[in-house]
Amino acid sequence: MSSNLHFGNLSVSIFGESHGNGIGVVIDGLPGGCEIDFDRILDFMARRAPKKDGISTRRNEKDFPEIMSGYLNGKTTGTPLCAVIKNTDQHSKDYGNIETVARPGHADYTGSVRYNNANDIRGGGHFSGRITAPLVFAGAVCGQILEQKGIYSGAHILSIGNIYDNKFDSVNVTKEDLETVKTKDFPLINSAVEQEMKDKVKAASDKLDSIGGRIECAVTGLPAGIGSPMFDGLENRISQAVFGVPAVKGIEFGVGFDFADMCGSEANDCFTTDGKTIKTVTNNNGGILGGISSGMPVIFTAAIKPTPSIAQPQQTVDYVKMENTVLEIKGRHDACIVPRAVPVIEAAANIAVLSFLI
Amino acid sequence: MSSNLHFGNLSVSIFGESHGNGIGVVIDGLPGGCEIDFDRILDFMARRAPKKDGISTRRNEKDFPEIMSGYLNGKTTGTPLCAVIKNTDQHSKDYGNIETVARPGHADYTGSVRYNNANDIRGGGHFSGRITAPLVFAGAVCGQILEQKGIYSGAHILSIGNIYDNKFDSVNVTKEDLETVKTKDFPLINSAVEQEMKDKVKAASDKLDSIGGRIECAVTGLPAGIGSPMFDGLENRISQAVFGVPAVKGIEFGVGFDFADMCGSEANDCFTTDGKTIKTVTNNNGGILGGISSGMPVIFTAAIKPTPSIAQPQQTVDYVKMENTVLEIKGRHDACIVPRAVPVIEAAANIAVLSFLI
Amino acid sequence: MSSNLHFGNLSVSIFGESHGNGIGVVIDGLPGGCEIDFDRILDFMARRAPKKDGISTRRNEKDFPEIMSGYLNGKTTGTPLCAVIKNTDQHSKDYGNIETVARPGHADYTGSVRYNNANDIRGGGHFSGRITAPLVFAGAVCGQILEQKGIYSGAHILSIGNIYDNKFDSVNVTKEDLETVKTKDFPLINSAVEQEMKDKVKAASDKLDSIGGRIECAVTGLPAGIGSPMFDGLENRISQAVFGVPAVKGIEFGVGFDFADMCGSEANDCFTTDGKTIKTVTNNNGGILGGISSGMPVIFTAAIKPTPSIAQPQQTVDYVKMENTVLEIKGRHDACIVPRAVPVIEAAANIAVLSFLI
Amino acid sequence: MSSNLHFGNLSVSIFGESHGNGIGVVIDGLPGGCEIDFDRILDFMARRAPKKDGISTRRNEKDFPEIMSGYLNGKTTGTPLCAVIKNTDQHSKDYGNIETVARPGHADYTGSVRYNNANDIRGGGHFSGRITAPLVFAGAVCGQILEQKGIYSGAHILSIGNIYDNKFDSVNVTKEDLETVKTKDFPLINSAVEQEMKDKVKAASDKLDSIGGRIECAVTGLPAGIGSPMFDGLENRISQAVFGVPAVKGIEFGVGFDFADMCGSEANDCFTTDGKTIKTVTNNNGGILGGISSGMPVIFTAAIKPTPSIAQPQQTVDYVKMENTVLEIKGRHDACIVPRAVPVIEAAANIAVLSFLI
Repeated sequence: MSSNLHFGNLSVSIFGESHGNGIGVVIDGLPGGCEIDFDRILDFMARRAPKKDGISTRRNEKDFPEIMSGYLNGKTTGTPLCAVIKNTDQHSKDYGNIETVARPGHADYTGSVRYNNANDIRGGGHFSGRITAPLVFAGAVCGQILEQKGIYSGAHILSIGNIYDNKFDSVNVTKEDLETVKTKDFPLINSAVEQEMKDKVKAASDKLDSIGGRIECAVTGLPAGIGSPMFDGLENRISQAVFGVPAVKGIEFGVGFDFADMCGSEANDCFTTDGKTIKTVTNNNGGILGGISSGMPVIFTAAIKPTPSIAQPQQTVDYVKMENTVLEIKGRHDACIVPRAVPVIEAAANIAVLSFLI
Repeated sequence: MSSNLHFGNLSVSIFGESHGNGIGVVIDGLPGGCEIDFDRILDFMARRAPKKDGISTRRNEKDFPEIMSGYLNGKTTGTPLCAVIKNTDQHSKDYGNIETVARPGHADYTGSVRYNNANDIRGGGHFSGRITAPLVFAGAVCGQILEQKGIYSGAHILSIGNIYDNKFDSVNVTKEDLETVKTKDFPLINSAVEQEMKDKVKAASDKLDSIGGRIECAVTGLPAGIGSPMFDGLENRISQAVFGVPAVKGIEFGVGFDFADMCGSEANDCFTTDGKTIKTVTNNNGGILGGISSGMPVIFTAAIKPTPSIAQPQQTVDYVKMENTVLEIKGRHDACIVPRAVPVIEAAANIAVLSFLI
Repeated sequence: MSSNLHFGNLSVSIFGESHGNGIGVVIDGLPGGCEIDFDRILDFMARRAPKKDGISTRRNEKDFPEIMSGYLNGKTTGTPLCAVIKNTDQHSKDYGNIETVARPGHADYTGSVRYNNANDIRGGGHFSGRITAPLVFAGAVCGQILEQKGIYSGAHILSIGNIYDNKFDSVNVTKEDLETVKTKDFPLINSAVEQEMKDKVKAASDKLDSIGGRIECAVTGLPAGIGSPMFDGLENRISQAVFGVPAVKGIEFGVGFDFADMCGSEANDCFTTDGKTIKTVTNNNGGILGGISSGMPVIFTAAIKPTPSIAQPQQTVDYVKMENTVLEIKGRHDACIVPRAVPVIEAAANIAVLSFLI
Repeated sequence: MSSNLHFGNLSVSIFGESHGNGIGVVIDGLPGGCEIDFDRILDFMARRAPKKDGISTRRNEKDFPEIMSGYLNGKTTGTPLCAVIKNTDQHSKDYGNIETVARPGHADYTGSVRYNNANDIRGGGHFSGRITAPLVFAGAVCGQILEQKGIYSGAHILSIGNIYDNKFDSVNVTKEDLETVKTKDFPLINSAVEQEMKDKVKAASDKLDSIGGRIECAVTGLPAGIGSPMFDGLENRISQAVFGVPAVKGIEFGVGFDFADMCGSEANDCFTTDGKTIKTVTNNNGGILGGISSGMPVIFTAAIKPTPSIAQPQQTVDYVKMENTVLEIKGRHDACIVPRAVPVIEAAANIAVLSFLI
């Protein structure tokens, strides 16, 4: 198996290759009768689509999802919901010369070994970032159901290169905060750094290079008591889902790796009550204690590696001829995929969180 | 569910509470006929046991595992292998005063909500670090089977506070390197920093405080082609298992979060071949591309938060009375759990990696 | 979840409603590089399609599967294989009058409760027999991979009403026997009873009634030692898959329910060896002992209930109005679905058996 | 994997061999705070224990379950509940001579192939009927939780040889009916046939033979709408669990195999309403339509094969020496395991049904 998330009563099964007939997803286990606004799904998916801003690839993806099943009269039917996105704009020739030359940082070689050299490698095949479109579709559906339960999620660019956005206020972040940042073309809390970030990407692009970054995601409104200890908690499911997004190489909850340098007296989130509800004064733990939600915002950060596809000449190997060679990647590629990855990370979180509630 | 890892054909089900009758594990799916040296299991478990070095708790755990099933004549039978560790040394009174006062940084409150206030909270109950003993047992068994396939794992303290050990050589680390570091009482590659680290822990302890750290783990000998893209790759399974270890709040593969600040030209691991095998010149990706092993060492780092149990007075809440209160935690607690967590992280990795091979 | 078979490393996820945009299946976990003859898939699917023989519905299904992913140059790629069958021939009006009147023997009422009255009930929706088309597709793919391992399956009509075909020779049935019966338009070992069976169906049809039957399925070439005791054996997986076929209400392995009336001395299959291989003299256990294959043919029988859709007036309930009413079902329905269910049962067996081998 | 039932949010993991140190079960996923009467668990387990009635084995099993975890102050804690039964009464010598001689009808040979000849075969090892003791424990726990939801189950001997008990009234069976039959030493609805059945068993025993039978199980109080279509319905889960009971070779729901000979007009269960609730007039479908409960009693029947262990000489094979031989099984064995299997079947049903409700 590979592309099947199996969380309790929810299953999300993604399929497709970059240059095959179509890509898509089957979501099995949704409750029946949940209202889903199709236009809002398209809006969510548009956040991932290539931008005209000089940062994202110019490839004109017509990622229109056709719903095959599971959706009727604006509502989930409760039976498996399948959406298919036809592939229409494949420029296979662009990739012609790299058929068996491993692109460094990509899964060409590992995929070839894994699949007995039989996998479709055109455009990255099943490993292509394009496969995140159906993941975003699924996350958009799950997100609308979460909203109906008073749960809201949102992600933003936390850093590109070493240029940083502000962090979410881990104690007080509101759904309005999430909504505001999500709807921006370039999702930053502090848009004052936007130009600096874009310059950083432009500079990398000009050098035929690429650049990585960080994405922070928050989920508000999740009541306390959701998740389980050990292997089936919020951290386990969210990380399993988020590592499903190509280019993610790290994840941390709350202050994450900063915990390593802290003392307990700084790190511990003290509890406080007004007699009715319990909160923590700080939220270093990112809303999760023992795998279970504390009622505070769930916060995590993912590390996104720089786009491996760069136009500079790179030393590599033809893994069929078993010869060293030099590769210059042609084609159209984002110099920084962080902006487009923002809704993908959010989608993965939506799926993981909703899975605990159905 | 909570404590059941379900990876393909392998299931690891952990049970127990700190002050119940016993804790243990059922490992289901092991092949029959694998030689398992029971003494080596004990050695592995001893690495997690409290040390006499002033760093670990003085609680004298007699964590002797009784094998109930699945093991005969020094070999796995192939049917479920169960080990039980009886609890014998519970000082329940030590915890008497915190019954419904939430210890900051612990899962007392979230567990109480999750389990309708019915869970056993003595000594942390199922959330106790003690529950990692059966996890280590399972990892020790899996590790021996991995060795029979030429696969070796090892972990070490990467940092405590801001004192750092060296990192593994991500390209050339050998099983001998792993063996050397693993067998040390205080598992460091560069033992020159041992005293500095211990001083750091002592200083925290003296201030009735605690301190966090990082653990690095490597797996060598894993052939290329293991794992799957998207949701069922090495990163997904390892992270799901590693977040099962209490106090882990982050995980990164290869250079992980450092990728965020890198350019593609630095980050990409170039391939090279001698005509027979393929390697990468660097190993920033930690031996994993597209969720699949590249044949290079698998490397990851986990962030460990400081022990939440500190003796300083802390603001918190009695979650039954719904009153604010001040808590001073008595009892014996490690000021730094990083050293004892090293074999636990390694054990989680062993389980995740072996699951792909059976 | 509902329509997702999750067996070890194989996942089969079926989606679709009778009158939605399309139905289909995602098969995740197939090895890469397995040759799959697309025409042979179509042949397998044609066995399920309505016949012109006066027995099956005249509805002209154009069940052409479009492969979206996972299949390239005549081989599996190893990544998820998705096939979609567009729905083109829906006569929704035929079903107009039964929207909220529960058809006896159907899942209209139970599905309505299950899905908060939101499921698509046109033509049976997700409960329609039409949803077995993608199941057959998946079984056809799995069957070709099994054949490459020397494993062959085949099913036939064992009975319709109380007219019986011969049983497979449970000890000596060959792949040629299976091939012969499978390729018949009306799959019987003893075609001498064909007319009698068809008369039985015709008689039921003439009375605006329907009739049930039995299907026997055999799998040859499966080596000894496949499957596991207790909950994950051949019987568990095959039964879980076979009860996924609408109208199946019973399953038995080997002599099955006849065991209940037997003595141990008759029932036990004695072992014998020629010094090289071990066989049993009889095969009452249907090739399975303790959930594990014995090397003898795997044999099971499924009970198929009569088509619930009959044109006679039936007492029933409008479950929205909560009123008693009388229903006369219009539309085109098979008076006996047993012949068309034969390849569906075989397909379910193929999926279950292959799941143990990957 | 083998002995791990994984149903949605419930996991039941059974371990142990007949002559190992202990057998037991881990139940993971129970809600916290459910009252469980330990004495009632013992009562349930006593129903499976050998009787003094000359029918069951005289082996004096002291099947006392020690709860290791998950149970405190008479309630589930919500964390994994583990019970261990120590093995104390193993007469290994009794089995000495059959070490590598395959007992016909048993899994000695198939288990040996499956487990590379490494499995513990003393007393049947993990394949022993003794392993059903922890299954019964789990079913007893699940049954008490079901009762708290108004759901009751009960099973009885439907036949031994060709002597039949009455069937449950599939429309009107009450919890009192279930309670009455369950608490009998020899669980029959119509105790008038008890002596005849016992004579049948005695006759088989006198001939050094054994005899099979049928067990019928009913579940009342299950509301409509529970379960899912295709692969995750009541029939799928119940059958997966019930085939986990050694000696079960068939299962049918409602009238099951009798459907095969029926017309739709007889088979269909007509719906009726009093304006408030919906029922069916008959219940041929055993309370399940499309995998989903109809609100009528869930009814199924399992076929139990005759005890394979018979004292008559049997032709068989030494599978290590690869030689034909004759086996005379010594030791103490039930001539009919049907009475003792009754609570086991009920337990399997309890687990499967409860899994849909948590």
